[in-house]
Amino acid sequence: MKRIAIDMDEVIADFNPKHLRLYNQDYKDNLTLEDLKGGRLAVLRPHLASEITEYLRDPSFFRDLEVVKDSQRVIQSLSQEYEIYITTAAMEFPSSFTAKYEWLREHFDFLDVLNFVFCGDKSIIRADYLIDDNASHFEHFSGQGVLFTAPHNWNVTGYDRVNNWQEVQQYFLK
Amino acid sequence: MKRIAIDMDEVIADFNPKHLRLYNQDYKDNLTLEDLKGGRLAVLRPHLASEITEYLRDPSFFRDLEVVKDSQRVIQSLSQEYEIYITTAAMEFPSSFTAKYEWLREHFDFLDVLNFVFCGDKSIIRADYLIDDNASHFEHFSGQGVLFTAPHNWNVTGYDRVNNWQEVQQYFLK
Repeated sequence: MKRIAIDMDEVIADFNPKHLRLYNQDYKDNLTLEDLKGGRLAVLRPHLASEITEYLRDPSFFRDLEVVKDSQRVIQSLSQEYEIYITTAAMEFPSSFTAKYEWLREHFDFLDVLNFVFCGDKSIIRADYLIDDNASHFEHFSGQGVLFTAPHNWNVTGYDRVNNWQEVQQYFLK
Repeated sequence: MKRIAIDMDEVIADFNPKHLRLYNQDYKDNLTLEDLKGGRLAVLRPHLASEITEYLRDPSFFRDLEVVKDSQRVIQSLSQEYEIYITTAAMEFPSSFTAKYEWLREHFDFLDVLNFVFCGDKSIIRADYLIDDNASHFEHFSGQGVLFTAPHNWNVTGYDRVNNWQEVQQYFLK
């Protein structure tokens, strides 16, 4: 059985809407997801970069993110034909551990907790595929990287790309 | 550069003395490390198995474990010639995440946090070597397993074995 490793933020956990909403509220701004295309919030507003990152240190930030559309249904299908691991770069935000674990238990309760991986550098992951929004993780990954479209990777080329979970389904279950 | 993945409990974090001490105190028993040879506490005292496991769910249990003798010095030496990752099966005790992270930061501050991995099934780990006290993790591991002696694995055969960190040093830096 081949193995697919799947990232969390911006792949199954809809990170940007909440981050943008909190930022816009607190700093009286009006940035939209469209504005993030090709960049990141902290790059667009560099004078507030540390404040923008600070939201992610709140232990509850990751607990109530929306689930990315179709990800539950498609991962459930994939899990019939592939080993599924959730591999999230949590070590930069250690206060997120519990929220991320509980979020996975709530929304992906059909996955074995022994298949959750909280890591930093993803070159440690042994899998046939890695679905991730950060192309940097593919550089030293031994398998096939599959870039999941997110605003910040809009201009990234050179990788297999999927724009949504319907396309993930087509990619793996064609 | 070759990569060594290193387990925490009973390899760098001295798990048994604290577990035994708490258990002996609370249940008026006198078990020693010697008694654990070839077994585990919960197997020796099956009628108290759930209570014995319950200690590990205390979020602070893993925070003040002693560092296994010589592990800091040897890992620091190894890190000159190998990539070092700490790979701990934390998913069965999610309440341990923060304590384990803080413990690593305190005692192994020369390691990059991006090289910490909290996982369950270690077949997800891509490394050339895995130093672990649980031989079961070697079964689907793609590299070379190196069994670190612990009371429970006393009778396990069929693997390269190291009895302490001086032997780890000899194994990797001979």
